[in-house]
Amino acid sequence: MSADCIEALAGALQGVANSTAAAEVLCGQFSNYALASDLQGTTIGLNTLYLTSCGALVFVMHAGFAMLCAGAIRSKNTIMDAAVSAVAFYILGYGFAYGVGDKPNGFIGDALFGLARWKPKNISAVSGVGWQNWFFQWAFAATATTIPAGAVAERLNFNAYLIYSFFISAFVYPVVVHWIWSAEGWLGFARAYPLYTHLFRSGMMDFAGSGVVHMTGGLAGLAGCIMVGPRMGRFDSNGNPVEMPGHSATLVVLGTVLLWFGWYGFNPGSQLLINSVASAAVVGRAAVTTTLSGAAGCLSCLLTAFFRHKAWDLVAGCNGALVGFVAITAGAHVLEPWAALICGLTGGWVFDAVCALFLKLRIDDPLSAAPMHAFCGAWGVFFVGLLAKREYVCDTYGRDCDNTYYIPNGLLYGGDGRLLASQVIGIICIFAWVFGLMSLLFAALKAVKLLRISAEEEQAGLDVSKHGGSAYNYDHGLGKPDKTGAIGL
Amino acid sequence: MSADCIEALAGALQGVANSTAAAEVLCGQFSNYALASDLQGTTIGLNTLYLTSCGALVFVMHAGFAMLCAGAIRSKNTIMDAAVSAVAFYILGYGFAYGVGDKPNGFIGDALFGLARWKPKNISAVSGVGWQNWFFQWAFAATATTIPAGAVAERLNFNAYLIYSFFISAFVYPVVVHWIWSAEGWLGFARAYPLYTHLFRSGMMDFAGSGVVHMTGGLAGLAGCIMVGPRMGRFDSNGNPVEMPGHSATLVVLGTVLLWFGWYGFNPGSQLLINSVASAAVVGRAAVTTTLSGAAGCLSCLLTAFFRHKAWDLVAGCNGALVGFVAITAGAHVLEPWAALICGLTGGWVFDAVCALFLKLRIDDPLSAAPMHAFCGAWGVFFVGLLAKREYVCDTYGRDCDNTYYIPNGLLYGGDGRLLASQVIGIICIFAWVFGLMSLLFAALKAVKLLRISAEEEQAGLDVSKHGGSAYNYDHGLGKPDKTGAIGL
Amino acid sequence: MSADCIEALAGALQGVANSTAAAEVLCGQFSNYALASDLQGTTIGLNTLYLTSCGALVFVMHAGFAMLCAGAIRSKNTIMDAAVSAVAFYILGYGFAYGVGDKPNGFIGDALFGLARWKPKNISAVSGVGWQNWFFQWAFAATATTIPAGAVAERLNFNAYLIYSFFISAFVYPVVVHWIWSAEGWLGFARAYPLYTHLFRSGMMDFAGSGVVHMTGGLAGLAGCIMVGPRMGRFDSNGNPVEMPGHSATLVVLGTVLLWFGWYGFNPGSQLLINSVASAAVVGRAAVTTTLSGAAGCLSCLLTAFFRHKAWDLVAGCNGALVGFVAITAGAHVLEPWAALICGLTGGWVFDAVCALFLKLRIDDPLSAAPMHAFCGAWGVFFVGLLAKREYVCDTYGRDCDNTYYIPNGLLYGGDGRLLASQVIGIICIFAWVFGLMSLLFAALKAVKLLRISAEEEQAGLDVSKHGGSAYNYDHGLGKPDKTGAIGL
Repeated sequence: MSADCIEALAGALQGVANSTAAAEVLCGQFSNYALASDLQGTTIGLNTLYLTSCGALVFVMHAGFAMLCAGAIRSKNTIMDAAVSAVAFYILGYGFAYGVGDKPNGFIGDALFGLARWKPKNISAVSGVGWQNWFFQWAFAATATTIPAGAVAERLNFNAYLIYSFFISAFVYPVVVHWIWSAEGWLGFARAYPLYTHLFRSGMMDFAGSGVVHMTGGLAGLAGCIMVGPRMGRFDSNGNPVEMPGHSATLVVLGTVLLWFGWYGFNPGSQLLINSVASAAVVGRAAVTTTLSGAAGCLSCLLTAFFRHKAWDLVAGCNGALVGFVAITAGAHVLEPWAALICGLTGGWVFDAVCALFLKLRIDDPLSAAPMHAFCGAWGVFFVGLLAKREYVCDTYGRDCDNTYYIPNGLLYGGDGRLLASQVIGIICIFAWVFGLMSLLFAALKAVKLLRISAEEEQAGLDVSKHGGSAYNYDHGLGKPDKTGAIGL
Repeated sequence: MSADCIEALAGALQGVANSTAAAEVLCGQFSNYALASDLQGTTIGLNTLYLTSCGALVFVMHAGFAMLCAGAIRSKNTIMDAAVSAVAFYILGYGFAYGVGDKPNGFIGDALFGLARWKPKNISAVSGVGWQNWFFQWAFAATATTIPAGAVAERLNFNAYLIYSFFISAFVYPVVVHWIWSAEGWLGFARAYPLYTHLFRSGMMDFAGSGVVHMTGGLAGLAGCIMVGPRMGRFDSNGNPVEMPGHSATLVVLGTVLLWFGWYGFNPGSQLLINSVASAAVVGRAAVTTTLSGAAGCLSCLLTAFFRHKAWDLVAGCNGALVGFVAITAGAHVLEPWAALICGLTGGWVFDAVCALFLKLRIDDPLSAAPMHAFCGAWGVFFVGLLAKREYVCDTYGRDCDNTYYIPNGLLYGGDGRLLASQVIGIICIFAWVFGLMSLLFAALKAVKLLRISAEEEQAGLDVSKHGGSAYNYDHGLGKPDKTGAIGL
Repeated sequence: MSADCIEALAGALQGVANSTAAAEVLCGQFSNYALASDLQGTTIGLNTLYLTSCGALVFVMHAGFAMLCAGAIRSKNTIMDAAVSAVAFYILGYGFAYGVGDKPNGFIGDALFGLARWKPKNISAVSGVGWQNWFFQWAFAATATTIPAGAVAERLNFNAYLIYSFFISAFVYPVVVHWIWSAEGWLGFARAYPLYTHLFRSGMMDFAGSGVVHMTGGLAGLAGCIMVGPRMGRFDSNGNPVEMPGHSATLVVLGTVLLWFGWYGFNPGSQLLINSVASAAVVGRAAVTTTLSGAAGCLSCLLTAFFRHKAWDLVAGCNGALVGFVAITAGAHVLEPWAALICGLTGGWVFDAVCALFLKLRIDDPLSAAPMHAFCGAWGVFFVGLLAKREYVCDTYGRDCDNTYYIPNGLLYGGDGRLLASQVIGIICIFAWVFGLMSLLFAALKAVKLLRISAEEEQAGLDVSKHGGSAYNYDHGLGKPDKTGAIGL
């Protein structure tokens, strides 16, 4: 009970017979005043736990990607991804993505490199800007960085791998983040400037990154697998595809379940704060829509494969689940559960069609990384423009639906198409930026003979793969691996 | 500082010399009034994070089940389980389990199908009824659905698999949930009606589902493996069991650790809300008792196997840990740590005895799913009737132990046996419902020749298994898997 | 609105014209008084969720260790570790670590055995002392217990394995915990006694256990692998090392990612409470520094191996990541991000040098458990003495940096060396205690012929390993494993 309070009140109550007694009763009640700072601590603790645990879930997706890639024996590089991306995102990437320096602009961040002048303690109770935010954002950068590995598996030179990992995490991906997720970004829905400055007075909506993360990763993979060319023997002399054996269904299932698990951090975590009734509803809804879209994608691809081949194909089902997750990632917060089912179902068709197209074009993407992440990612971004629900938009972005000012709605809900137009512009810009830059990088690597391993090395890798082995002489990091320049043999 | 507050107080304090000053001092203190809604947000955020993170942990148990099944090469269907159960539980299951419609009754729910008229935002600060609740409940449904796969592995037709998965998630499991976990349920301890309407004025207590989830899954598996018959070559012409090779100890260990991990969502998550001192204690205690029962089960089975064979058997230890978890799942909230040790220890004996009995009866359950989940699940339910501790019951169910009205106690603590009787009735009813319905379903599938794969397909699968392979031709979901109707070859 | 409040105020305000009206206005505002207990519940719920989810993450590290060990086919004992450590830590370990009984002292705890007289409900709102605390502490004990398995893999008798697991969890590890982490400990920084009673008026700082957990586990492994001797054929007749094949790069990557994942519970969880702005900052920072140190360690070992062998070595990168995590574990809370990079980078060099030394000394540690955990753990403890940042020390330990009394600083920040001296004393004492006791234990096991499997068994194991198999006859725990006394064949 504060003495100041008692003194002030006793003075103010001088006409009262028992002014001191009155002051004591009243001030005694105010002892819960300390609750404000206690609550601040609890609230920020909650948000921190939320982001760090979701970030950890996003990270464990690397185990999933690694298992998916494990059949392709030269592509077990997921640890390197994570390591390179951490260093690159610390030194440069986070600054390009979120740094607000002397010349803030909508294209690229200009501060916070190496977390310089980082003062995460000076933050309000509910702010997402803290150490945990760097961690969470890095986990996404690492995801974007690891996706291309599936597309260039079994033939890319390891040096090229290190170089492109750094380039994506340090520059290509962060710029896309800045456009769409930063408060300054010219393209994003959540841009922190008046509505008339937003693209089409709406802006692109991409909750957890169907565009920002998955299109970026998938398009980088597409550029890579086009530039490096197909694996030896992937197409016969007539250009017809030849089956390449070697995948373990056990590891594909394990990888898929681990990715599914991690997606519960990826999507529900992207609300960034959880300490309000509306935010908590978004988090919960994102878990539901993610589940339903993945399930629908799984059954969609399973049935499509069955009708094509009259046989059940487990791996098609696994791919389908991932397709459903990629597609729902943009709209997990603003789609109804039934819309999530449609999102995954149609995503499966997009995937199937693009895979068939790739075979016709003789593009060899061993893990279908580009059809899955680039094209189904784009489909997910587009889908938000069709079926985003106004009420849920208000929940997520803290706007007032009862108010009169403009709030976008999906086109099929009677929206005026501004949101959909923003989504399309977003898709085009991500495509141009990522595919353009990454093609330049891979072309440069090709020019200096750093892009592809030698034919002998590739043949050796395929031989090992045919024998089903992924054994490895391993001697405390001191052993002598073969000197092929590739790893994992 | 609210002007209304100052005006009202200044009026009320008119006899005071400085009534305005007094009102200002007082109303200034009330600015922390906003704390109430801030705290509501933080509290619901906490509960949402709790359920979604625990739900994600429960889901990752699928990775564990998949790894346990991976040696049995035709049973890598865990992704399909999860997908089918999500769609089925969305359309029908959740409604049958928890829907309260026009005719609420103790047997089955009658609303919320397809989450129709779902208003999860209209919830009090601490309610568990929200989007995250659907997600958490689905993760349990998916667990019940995936358990039978271990019992019918390597010989069930994939069509049968899809059909029974849907049937369990959409109907069989949700009805059991309604009986025992819903507020309307005729059987459950937490039924939201006066005590005299409860079964034996007590009701069955099953915290996280030794009965609801594990018995349901295990009994469905039992019905399936009896109806489909043993694998080819499992018993010789004299009816003696023949060893079936092919399991990888590495994957068994990986699967067991992942299940152990997931159980920390399964049991501690089943308190549903964590925002009180009593609830938090239940959550923490559930983590402790779960750990100790699993540990005791592991050592129990390890030692039993050692005394039988004079050799240490790693897989026996893994099975034992899972047995311990299954058994403690009913009573993780109300058992003392020492009782948890006894629960796991004795659970191991139950498992060993039932496995031996199955061999005598020539029931071929490749992963011992029925002995583990059905029988040790029943043991866990029974055990609660023996050693539930009254003080902990009060904590969990928000009752007042100091009050005079009836609170059940374990029989060995001097309880009057009503709780134990309720547990026994629960076991019998789950057995009758699940085993009865599932036997009918499997018999129908047998009648239409959809139950079992052909002898050639089964032999082909065994051959692959013998060669230790689980390789799989995998071609972007566009390849041509063999046309056996089974997957995973 | 409390009637007591209105009555008391109306009496106190008797001089006021409308005293009852005034009392009603005021007391109406106090209805948020209940917030205090609501907030207490939310806060303790938050802390409980934090510890249980972090504990679960720490536990899943067992999956990582199991996968790392899986190439070494006799060492899949991780489930037994966890089980033995749970029982041992329940009966004895937790009491030796944290029990405060009749004779509290700085060397060893003396109460709480079997959680006797455990009253975790009688705790303040923010206390970390509850059921969840036992769970979290056990997960660390299990980690220390599982580390040695990598060093003695493929040749230790399983009986010896059970015995040393019990001994470490029940006694060796808990005593180290008591010294450094308990409020009574003679050695630790956070000792709850006046500063002049601390070692060098500072005490040893070991946030999450580079010393307490990793040195203990690694030194136990070192004692074991020295006493049991090298594997058959590890060194040729001239004493030169011979490559031992059999590791799967796929499983090494999976294991490393799972350990990386778990470390986000290990380090960020070690703040124990998260409900304050300062604590939340520590948790977030620990996630960042952990990431950066692991990344730097990974690249450090990858590049070191490349310069040695002119080839990229994936497994070296995986080991390097783990080295980075081990090293940052002592100082994840008080190091700057750039210091974390240096910590991982230099940790990689320490690891490389110690591995080379071991080969010269003909010490055969198949998974390099001792170089990684014992020596890089010691390096991490030492590193804190160099670069702990005063401001971050205040955050973590709740001290007031603006105050005048002594707060240690890293030597390179101008500290006076007391902290560094404490760290060195800590390293020496852990070494003496663990290596001494464990050498005695292993010597005793050797004397009674329980230490090593027979030459035939070892040869049989190596044969299986050479053929790449880890298949296992597994028959519901009722099958007949080979009677070698070893498991996993």
